[in-house]
Amino acid sequence: MSQYGTLEERVRRKSLLSKVMKPEDCVQFFKPGMNIGCSGFTPAGYPKAVPIALADHVEKNGLQGQTKYNLFIGASVGVEFEDRWASLDMIDRRWPYQTGKNIAKGINTGKIRMGDKHLGHFAQDVGYGFYTENGRMDIAIIEVSAINEDCGLALTSSCGIVPELMMVADKIIIEVNTGQPSFEGMHDIIMQQKPPYRQPFLITHATQRIGTPYVPCDPEKIVAIVESKHRDKGRAFAEMDEKSEAIAEHILDFFHHEVKKGRLPKNLLPLQSGVGSIANAVVGGLVKGDFYNLTVYTEVLQDTMLDLFDSGKLDGASACSLSLSEDPGFPRFFDNWDKYFDKIVLRPLSVSNAPEPIRRLGCIAMNTPVEIDIYAHANSTLVGGTRMINGLGGSGDFLRNGYLKIMHTPSVRPTKTDPTGISCIVPHCSHIDHTEHDLDCVVTEQGLADLRGVAPKERARLIIEKCAHPDYKDQLLDYLEMATKSCLERGVGHEPQLWDRAFKMHLNLERNGTMKVKNWDVKIDLCE
Amino acid sequence: MSQYGTLEERVRRKSLLSKVMKPEDCVQFFKPGMNIGCSGFTPAGYPKAVPIALADHVEKNGLQGQTKYNLFIGASVGVEFEDRWASLDMIDRRWPYQTGKNIAKGINTGKIRMGDKHLGHFAQDVGYGFYTENGRMDIAIIEVSAINEDCGLALTSSCGIVPELMMVADKIIIEVNTGQPSFEGMHDIIMQQKPPYRQPFLITHATQRIGTPYVPCDPEKIVAIVESKHRDKGRAFAEMDEKSEAIAEHILDFFHHEVKKGRLPKNLLPLQSGVGSIANAVVGGLVKGDFYNLTVYTEVLQDTMLDLFDSGKLDGASACSLSLSEDPGFPRFFDNWDKYFDKIVLRPLSVSNAPEPIRRLGCIAMNTPVEIDIYAHANSTLVGGTRMINGLGGSGDFLRNGYLKIMHTPSVRPTKTDPTGISCIVPHCSHIDHTEHDLDCVVTEQGLADLRGVAPKERARLIIEKCAHPDYKDQLLDYLEMATKSCLERGVGHEPQLWDRAFKMHLNLERNGTMKVKNWDVKIDLCE
Repeated sequence: MSQYGTLEERVRRKSLLSKVMKPEDCVQFFKPGMNIGCSGFTPAGYPKAVPIALADHVEKNGLQGQTKYNLFIGASVGVEFEDRWASLDMIDRRWPYQTGKNIAKGINTGKIRMGDKHLGHFAQDVGYGFYTENGRMDIAIIEVSAINEDCGLALTSSCGIVPELMMVADKIIIEVNTGQPSFEGMHDIIMQQKPPYRQPFLITHATQRIGTPYVPCDPEKIVAIVESKHRDKGRAFAEMDEKSEAIAEHILDFFHHEVKKGRLPKNLLPLQSGVGSIANAVVGGLVKGDFYNLTVYTEVLQDTMLDLFDSGKLDGASACSLSLSEDPGFPRFFDNWDKYFDKIVLRPLSVSNAPEPIRRLGCIAMNTPVEIDIYAHANSTLVGGTRMINGLGGSGDFLRNGYLKIMHTPSVRPTKTDPTGISCIVPHCSHIDHTEHDLDCVVTEQGLADLRGVAPKERARLIIEKCAHPDYKDQLLDYLEMATKSCLERGVGHEPQLWDRAFKMHLNLERNGTMKVKNWDVKIDLCE
Repeated sequence: MSQYGTLEERVRRKSLLSKVMKPEDCVQFFKPGMNIGCSGFTPAGYPKAVPIALADHVEKNGLQGQTKYNLFIGASVGVEFEDRWASLDMIDRRWPYQTGKNIAKGINTGKIRMGDKHLGHFAQDVGYGFYTENGRMDIAIIEVSAINEDCGLALTSSCGIVPELMMVADKIIIEVNTGQPSFEGMHDIIMQQKPPYRQPFLITHATQRIGTPYVPCDPEKIVAIVESKHRDKGRAFAEMDEKSEAIAEHILDFFHHEVKKGRLPKNLLPLQSGVGSIANAVVGGLVKGDFYNLTVYTEVLQDTMLDLFDSGKLDGASACSLSLSEDPGFPRFFDNWDKYFDKIVLRPLSVSNAPEPIRRLGCIAMNTPVEIDIYAHANSTLVGGTRMINGLGGSGDFLRNGYLKIMHTPSVRPTKTDPTGISCIVPHCSHIDHTEHDLDCVVTEQGLADLRGVAPKERARLIIEKCAHPDYKDQLLDYLEMATKSCLERGVGHEPQLWDRAFKMHLNLERNGTMKVKNWDVKIDLCE
């Protein structure tokens, strides 16, 4: 018997016990070309046993490339699922976010058709039936902690798009995870209606509950109940470095300034923070800092949030997923269950990332882009404007709707081919996911540029002066001056650019391994 | 005595009558460098008497360039105000939208500092104090129909940012417009709170009222009451042409298709529609069409909406402004007051353009861009990526949050230098206001591309095949194929682009007056 309770204890809808089967027996339900929807969000709460069994089946029978599926999941899932599936050539379409070397390779070499989308949109659009020809999903695989007497699903470490999948899935496979404690009671579920029948999300503080802990599920759609003991393959903790800490310091200074100006309350506003070392450094700064009674309204809770809880400064947190590291994150969480459980609300993606609560609560949105340009457009997704990394995620949901919209990035990223590194501040982004209309502040380790109410040409100067790496400052200013002069002379200079040179830094990197530009007068020297 | 009632009748807060003065006597309240906020939205409901008096004063005394102000108004105001001010060099900063030859010239030659912003953001950000150093406006000029006993303002043909101005203005000048009927009762006002004190907008159908008809105003802040008889200098009606009608036909066909698929109810969903000939043609199509019980939730109501009301097919409309033409729009409206009055709700910009109701109601968003690229990014603001036209407006508020997000444009726009015209479909937009993540459909007179659930490279093919002008189709496909081949070979091909050629069409237009590209192998031939 499991230390966390048996399958029989977890499945309280007793009639479902007749549908219990082994993961490998579920292979029968899958046909090539099927549209598959899954629970899961940023390696948390995704099904594992059945996807692994399917991959084993393909591998064992040499079916690579012959059994491709379309995968619709709230965000990324663990490498043992989507990345292995990609390496076995099992994925045709993947929406709207992913993580893994093999899946990224598949996407960027044209084998996998991926589309990214604001995560908050994706959730509701699945419910609206926008992603498949008939608006349905052939099958959904859902990881749960338990099923109650009414066939309500108590989910695990994330909510993802499970409510929407319940509306559009023809068949449902349930994985009951008995390899960890039950998360029953942590979720706050409401089922979205389609317009014109949608109702308000009556959330007026970050952890307010407006629903029930269970996702209603039609028992007749359930074709299999599978026991699983696999734990989430959580993201490893991203260590903070000096640069991240410098960025965090600028941000905390800015918070103090805004409190002084009366534009932020003393306990700030609900924080949204992306993933990675800068996000961790910001939270680290708050752990040591003098802000109290903080709240978090975000999409992903990571290890550092446990520190913030432990500091006594965080009153509560709302998210779509609890995406802790496999070790030490989850064990630490499970060992201190009572300390954290009541302070966390897990919400469906369609609520965690909805404009309505984000805007009403006035979230402070903080995310890291690939690059930012001098006019404050940001690229979050495509390196060089063409190579997909993971996807847009919820950055747009929060940056568009937050009270303060902050993008933070190191001023340069390391490369082997240039000692300074690649500049993250460029004349024009090679891909734009967030526009100049969506950002309030840009922060690097060099400084913070507050762009509120600042016109484009001044904004450019501010970003270059406050944020660019010293080795790139002059060349960016040279570009700005040259472009400004040329465009103003022609009476077309609201936001100056020169299209024969705007991408010179990118092209130089591509061809010569450096973003340094010695002479802007020479237009892109690539005509030979 | 005015046929519409006297000033004394309109000002029911009797103590204010002691502050009545002539427009020219208000000049005393203005000092150079002041931050001025005004009522008004898309030439409707803006103050006229005082701005004209100020302009006269500057002109008469040769003060051009010596008395510059910062203007914060919900959207554009009439030419007699902002455009004349621009020609008299009276504007330093202008936020967030404008109309007029002289003001555009001032912006694009660097004389006027303009910033555009999602209008829904602008409204709330003014209330948050984001646009001025101390968060305040020195003075607000507000056009009203009447002032009630409690000093509540009954506005005129728009609501704009008046509620927010009441929160941040130090002094207030009121223009009481007795030159037209009183709009008292048409407005639905709620005062925004700052987070963490914001409450839901409980709007669940387009014309639902959630507030009161009056904007609360502090009588002690009022420094002058001015009578005005100037009418709005409304936008002239944009005639429909063959192309617009073809576009409208594609859109109506699409609506029928979506109803059939069960993705739209029979009476559609609340319509948002931009301004101009295509928007007029779409409404014209609905007037003749077989959709009934329609509703509108938009930012601007134009002349054609009166036709849609007259057809009996429109149940009600919500907007931020009633922006009718001077003739025949407003006279027609005033002459048939009872027919329209009860069916229209005018809301503050912070409500009309808020993500919350737009998303909940499931608006069908339709707007016209400057250009769209093959991956469905759209440029709404800057010709050639650098020259400001009017500003972003509310296009982003509706395109991001609508149920269906449609951009419509002719496939080409006329130019003297190329018989086919300039292609509105390009490899890469020269400015991006709306990203690939925000659009569902692209429509030109050539056809409609439904991009929901379609990955980038397929999306590009679909847009080119369905929407591009025949004279540009081949060269766009050539670019796509060339870029795809090159990027996939290098394993960087999620969304292929070649930065030495992506702007070749734009550069060719700039230098040679044509967007036709004969040979993509020749990289931008501008190095000499």
